[in-house]
Formats: sequence, C-alpha cells, structure tokens
Amino acid sequence: MRATVIHAARDIRVEEVPDPVLSTGADAIVRVVAACVCGSDLWPYRGVTPTDEPQRIGHEFVGIVEAVGVDVHTVRPGDFVIAPFYVCDGTCANCLNGVSTSCLTGGWWGSDDRFGGFADGGQGEYVRVPLADGTLAVVPGPVADDEVAGLLTLSDVMGTGHHAAVSAGVGAGDSVAVVGDGAVGLCAIIAAKRLGATTIIAMSRHPERQALAREFGATHVVEERGDDGVAAVRELTGGIGADRVLECVGTKESMDQALRSTRPGGMVGYVGVPNGGPELPIRQMFGRNVGVNGGVAPVRGYIEELLPDVRSGVIQPGRVFDLVLPLAEAAEAYAAMDERRAVKVMLRP
Amino acid sequence: MRATVIHAARDIRVEEVPDPVLSTGADAIVRVVAACVCGSDLWPYRGVTPTDEPQRIGHEFVGIVEAVGVDVHTVRPGDFVIAPFYVCDGTCANCLNGVSTSCLTGGWWGSDDRFGGFADGGQGEYVRVPLADGTLAVVPGPVADDEVAGLLTLSDVMGTGHHAAVSAGVGAGDSVAVVGDGAVGLCAIIAAKRLGATTIIAMSRHPERQALAREFGATHVVEERGDDGVAAVRELTGGIGADRVLECVGTKESMDQALRSTRPGGMVGYVGVPNGGPELPIRQMFGRNVGVNGGVAPVRGYIEELLPDVRSGVIQPGRVFDLVLPLAEAAEAYAAMDERRAVKVMLRP
Repeated sequence: MRATVIHAARDIRVEEVPDPVLSTGADAIVRVVAACVCGSDLWPYRGVTPTDEPQRIGHEFVGIVEAVGVDVHTVRPGDFVIAPFYVCDGTCANCLNGVSTSCLTGGWWGSDDRFGGFADGGQGEYVRVPLADGTLAVVPGPVADDEVAGLLTLSDVMGTGHHAAVSAGVGAGDSVAVVGDGAVGLCAIIAAKRLGATTIIAMSRHPERQALAREFGATHVVEERGDDGVAAVRELTGGIGADRVLECVGTKESMDQALRSTRPGGMVGYVGVPNGGPELPIRQMFGRNVGVNGGVAPVRGYIEELLPDVRSGVIQPGRVFDLVLPLAEAAEAYAAMDERRAVKVMLRP
Repeated sequence: MRATVIHAARDIRVEEVPDPVLSTGADAIVRVVAACVCGSDLWPYRGVTPTDEPQRIGHEFVGIVEAVGVDVHTVRPGDFVIAPFYVCDGTCANCLNGVSTSCLTGGWWGSDDRFGGFADGGQGEYVRVPLADGTLAVVPGPVADDEVAGLLTLSDVMGTGHHAAVSAGVGAGDSVAVVGDGAVGLCAIIAAKRLGATTIIAMSRHPERQALAREFGATHVVEERGDDGVAAVRELTGGIGADRVLECVGTKESMDQALRSTRPGGMVGYVGVPNGGPELPIRQMFGRNVGVNGGVAPVRGYIEELLPDVRSGVIQPGRVFDLVLPLAEAAEAYAAMDERRAVKVMLRP
C-alpha cells in the first residue's frame, strides 16, 4: 500500500510500504477514507523535533473496517470508524477515569506497540489498529461523503477544542476567551458555545479565521496581543477578565496571554502542546486564584458525546478543512499548513 | 492599647500603640477575643521577608464589636464576629464571584487601606475594621468560650484547607492525598472528609500530627517523601495516584510531591504560599492531564457554609490549637511555632 513517510525536515513522501496484517486477535485493519495533517505534524516537518530515520506519520483518520481479529467484539468489517489520535484499551483505570491518553496499555500511531509490532501512521491507505475495541468508535448507519469532514474532526481537533472547554469548566452564561485561531482554537469556540458560554472572544488577526470564528459562535474578536490584548478582553468582561480562557497554541506568549486574560478565580483550559516551556508562573496564579487545567486531550471518550451534534449539523467543525488533496499530494498538504495557506488539510487516499 | 509589633527578624514585642478610632462610616472597632499566629507570619519572623521598620502583625482574629460607623448595617455593637485574614467589601465583581481575596477595594491587616488610614494588625487588643459590612461575619447568639478556638480557625486555616479541597474539586468517593501536616494541612483533611472523600492520605512524619490527622479523617498515613512518597500514594490508589492532592506547604518539594502523587486527569488544589518558586512544570502536567488550581483562599465566603458544622461539633478544627498564651507572650508564641513545638498558637488579650 501507499503511505506517508517523513524522511527529514520538509521531506514528506508518499511511498510503497508493507500492507498491514492482523498481528494480534485484538487488531483491526481499517481502509482509510480520509486523514489529515495536524499542527503537531508540523514539528518534525519544521525540524523542531528531529527525524533521524524515515518515519511513518499521521494520527487522525476515519475509515472502513476491512478485517478484525478473533478477539474484537465491538467493531465489525464494514463499519465506518473514527480513530482517535492514539491507541487505547478503554478498560484500564485511566481510561475508565476518562483519561484514555494515559491508557496503561495504549500507544501512538506510527510506532511500535506493546502487542503486535508496528502500528501504521494515519496518512496512508490502510492502518493496522491495535486494541481495536477500545480505540475505534463506530459511526452507525450509512455515512454520506459530506459527513466525512465533520467526523474526521472527532479524531482530534473537535475533541481537543472540547477538552479545552471542559478542562476550563465552561458552563452556561460564562464569558470565554479563546487564544489561538487554528483548527483547535476554532473548535474550542464551537465547544464553548455548545456548553453554554454567552460571551465568546476570539483572539485572532486573520480576517478569514475571524469570519469563521464568528460563524462558529464568537461574539467578539480581539486582534490585539500582550498588554493590549489583556486590556481588550477585560473591557469586554466587566473589567476583570474572562471566566474561562482556552489556550490552544502552546507557546510562552499564548499561555501568558491566557493567564492574564482570566479573571480572578477563573480557569485556563489548555490543549496547546507546550512548546518547550516556559514553566507556569505560580505566584501570579496564586495571587489571583487562576487555575490551569488540561493537557493531551482524551478525545476517544468525547466521540460518543459529540457525534450526534456533528451528524445533525448542530455543530459544523468540518468547516475547518479549507483544503482537500489526494494522498499523493501529502507534501503539498504539509507545505500549505506550514505556510498558513490552509487552516487544516484533508487527505483522501 | 497593646498590640504586637515586629521590629526585625526574631524580634517580636507587645507594646503600647494608639487606640483605634472610627475613621470612616464603614468602619467597626472590634475588641479582640482571640487571635493567632499564622505560618505566613513566620516569614518576616525568620527574616525570609525583610522588616525594614517596626510593623504591626497578625491577621487572624475573632472578637466583639465595640462600635460601628454610620454606614455599617450588618454588624452591631455586641456582635461576636469572625474576621477573615483580609479586608473586603463583599459587593465588587470579584467578591460576587467568590474571590474576595481579589476584592477591588479591599486590603490587608496591618497596613494602610484606601479609606480610613491604618488598619490594625490582628494580634492586639482592638482592631479598626474597614469595610466592616463586607469583612466581618457575625456569629449569631451567645458564644461559649470553648467555641472560640473553632471559630478562630474560620478566619484562616479551616477556610484555607477547605479552599484547597474545593479548588481540587474533591467530591464523594474521591481519593485525596494531603501534602503538609501544619494547621492548614490538618484542616484540609477535615475538609476532604466533609466533602465526601473516602480515601484520605496524610503525608506526615510527626507522630502527634499523624494522630490528629487520623482523628480528623485520614484513612492512611504516608511518611515517605519524594519518589518513595509517590510510590506509597500510588500503592494506596490502585497504582495510578490520588484523584485529588491538596498542597498545603508552598515549597518546590511539596508541589513536586503533589503533582507526581496525582493520577492522570486529577487535580492539585494548592494553598501553600509559593515560597519563591519554582514555576510549575507544564510539560509534566500536560502529558498527564494534571491540573493545578487554588491560591490565596477567599475564606470570607466560606464562613457561612462552615459555621454550622463548627458550632455543632461535626468538624473540630479548633483542635489544631495546641498552645494558648496571653497576648503578652506573643514572642514565645512565634518561637514555639518556628521551632515546631506547636502546630498553632492562640493568643488571648
């Protein structure tokens, strides 16, 4: 089959790789219907994390189950499935606590797992899925092609934006500021509105993303950053800051923006992968009672909750995809996201 | 009147100072029935924070209202009142959000306020209380002398322990570990039990404090610290760590202990004044979805909730006082706490 392989920074190739096989009874083989490029895929692409040898890449995909091992019970051939960006068993103590990203037996796409050897990356024609019962979420009934984009967001960005909102404790009537206007930030706006926030402030400087943010539920847009950004958020929130702030970037500047934009007693929900620091300023947090909660989003557990609203169109996270390319053009997909020509790129094998 | 003044590190004196007067219509004059020494009072005592000139000290007291200004409506002469460790108006946006420690017009004992000049320290015979309606909580009916200790804890340590538990989100059936066996840590155990925790792990090396911790509700005691302490907590919590960890110290080591003793997806509630750092390790928090919430405890807002359980004896936080001294012996009170000969010292004018 063909799959995407990163050879070095800015060297993305689609090439022939071995077809996956069922190597344990808990495996499934999934034919990928659509995959996508994640902001975190840009780290190796940009050389921020090194690529020492050619490596399979991609961790967000949906597809059709082709075959399952003898121990798989909840997933059957022909099912349309959503794979979260990680592998999990769904039964360990951490999974049962809703933190399947800390699954005691799980693992990551594109690397060896503890059971059957190599788990393919998501940007390919087929994927061997370990722990299929725990990992895959079945989408019932026939799936129309125009549903694919929305369903694909449940593999990562929509669940991750939701995690930011849940971690911050967003509830009815809250004021919420969202730092970051990438796909996750935009999905965080959807999540904040869905959870009842009534003032939603998108911090964005890009006209197209501002427009999408407003369509998703943002009531205000703040273009300023730093002190001016903090002042603008406070002006919109009775002078004290937002009840909840969703940090969807992961840099020093974005976390600082988030902490200072939160009112005393409020909470920052963060899902931006911390990009090398810095550490959190605890005295500033202490004096104002601003909490920080979040992390690598356990999206598998959110799929069932979010799926009905995605299928009914109540929320439309699939609109974050503004470019669709065939798998063969994966290199261009990375370039488009790297150069911010696209918010989020879908790859169709 | 007589009041406690710190002149320099380890130089605590009780001396004659001006009698307080009503300097605004919102003031009350309170005759102190009991005051106490706070762990944070030990910072200037130990010279960790400098004392450049003689300064009034003490911020925890209960007493009888002697006089009120013309604008005071909820407090009357003769009332027995509890003062939180700060001054607040009870009406600003932050107070209404439950974060009265961030009151937009409030202030601190023993320093100038924005209205009537100097607010006395709590360790004296009388105190001028600014913003009396917002600051003081009235204890209804006659107050017996054996109630004083319990009521006095509502000025700080019981409310602060409760804030750690509330900030961590302690709920029914939770496993909770408490880092720190001072008065606040012991009160955090009371709070965790009161909020429904069923496994409560006290991290303590002191036999007397361990015994009190068990009487307050601790189901287990862990004496180990560092890696061994983490391992011991995990062994008691199904291998993954405690649902909630209450950090009641404020040092680098105690926060590290707390973060690592928390299960994935759990929360650290912290009230230990951060002692100069370090900053929080965000990547460690991110990977395990461990949140950090808390800060300077808005105890004024907790008094009404906790008061009935204190008065009925359902909770007995007053037992943290293991030494009672006359005000004249304030210097010995500081020395006893500094040398850990006492958990918490009460001063009676």
